[in-house]
Amino acid sequence: MNRNIVKPGNFYAVGVGPGSPDLLTLRAADLIRQADVVVAPRSRIADESLALKAVQDLIRPDQEVIDHVYAMKRDIEHTRQNWNEIAKVIADRCHAGHSVVQITIGDPMIYSTSAYLMDELKREAPDVPVHIVPGISAFQSVASQFNQILTIQEDRMMLMPATDMDRVERALKECETLILYKAGKMLPKLAELLSAENLTDCAKVAFYVEQEGRECLFDSIDEAVAATPGYMATVILHINREEWKTVE
Amino acid sequence: MNRNIVKPGNFYAVGVGPGSPDLLTLRAADLIRQADVVVAPRSRIADESLALKAVQDLIRPDQEVIDHVYAMKRDIEHTRQNWNEIAKVIADRCHAGHSVVQITIGDPMIYSTSAYLMDELKREAPDVPVHIVPGISAFQSVASQFNQILTIQEDRMMLMPATDMDRVERALKECETLILYKAGKMLPKLAELLSAENLTDCAKVAFYVEQEGRECLFDSIDEAVAATPGYMATVILHINREEWKTVE
Repeated sequence: MNRNIVKPGNFYAVGVGPGSPDLLTLRAADLIRQADVVVAPRSRIADESLALKAVQDLIRPDQEVIDHVYAMKRDIEHTRQNWNEIAKVIADRCHAGHSVVQITIGDPMIYSTSAYLMDELKREAPDVPVHIVPGISAFQSVASQFNQILTIQEDRMMLMPATDMDRVERALKECETLILYKAGKMLPKLAELLSAENLTDCAKVAFYVEQEGRECLFDSIDEAVAATPGYMATVILHINREEWKTVE
Repeated sequence: MNRNIVKPGNFYAVGVGPGSPDLLTLRAADLIRQADVVVAPRSRIADESLALKAVQDLIRPDQEVIDHVYAMKRDIEHTRQNWNEIAKVIADRCHAGHSVVQITIGDPMIYSTSAYLMDELKREAPDVPVHIVPGISAFQSVASQFNQILTIQEDRMMLMPATDMDRVERALKECETLILYKAGKMLPKLAELLSAENLTDCAKVAFYVEQEGRECLFDSIDEAVAATPGYMATVILHINREEWKTVE
């Protein structure tokens, strides 16, 4: 299918996984190596692009690397304008026949900046072909690090941000495994909720999974609360497992 | 962290992604190349191991490849016995100082045979160190192929098998994106439900995503119902997107 060969004038949103350079897919690595232009988003609060750090060994000296700084604001106009600027740059490069790869931590379809960029690129240059390469999302690495099975058989898994505790409480009743992203600030409230629901023992917490020198894993939510939480905090709640059905 | 170097006597459950050889992670490829023994599960109804097909170019002539056939029965005793047999073989190899990799389609933690194998290995040989390498799960590739954003901001995503339509109906109300696995046989019922809920337009369907020569993508559930469904069918229901919040 040759999905690992870049085409001139095409745009690629490429997931690079949670941060470790060996958690890229072979396809992602191939496309990054071949691209004329690599766009690396970096939030204003970060001193470096985590995505760029993960792929630094793949970057060629003759590649154009665009360091794109964005603010993590929930202001739709500001966000649109910010991503529109980089979308225009990408559209120019693509129209000049260059291949452009945007690298992004995790998976481009799961809580990623690629969503905003692709929206704006479609608006600016609907003629530019867009391709997506999936990446390992943090929850997958957290599950792997804890040897924590997420789903078998009839299990339901829910993934959501840990912002609204009422929603989290409802979700506890509608799935067997609940994964919470952006959980750092909410850990104390979450610990309270789990205690009230008799679910304290079912939580695993990770900060900065698969980021060299920063990864912290906690088997207990109380330990995680006591630690200094990172922004990139993931919680896996393994609520219950249904009995295996014995019918074929 | 050297998570890409095999250790003698250790066991690795390695996800190889949905089927395309370039959707393995670099870590998965490294471990498979180095392992003394590669265990490739294959369901009784399949004429070859999809996982083995995805990694065939990585296999060395001097590697031991164990083709493990399992029945897709929901009979707990039968399943345990079947996986216990291969767990014993793996325990023997590990105790002899060999490194063993089990390859599995998708991600070992998401509806994977690795769950059963790891259970039995723990029972047979609790001393054998177990490591997991995450893999791209089919839903991620389906989203990529459709350029379908799964989650932004406050969105909730639910992943479940399409077996119980009452549960599917409830899930429609508790998430913004619903992903259904094992949806082949249930497509007609699902089409009915979506029609009743006025959600017919929000479905994308894929059979055998990223499997060379077999991938089918349907923008409409009615087209998918009319086609011959495959067992490996994934449905993405993009139910609604909340408005972006304008507070910081």
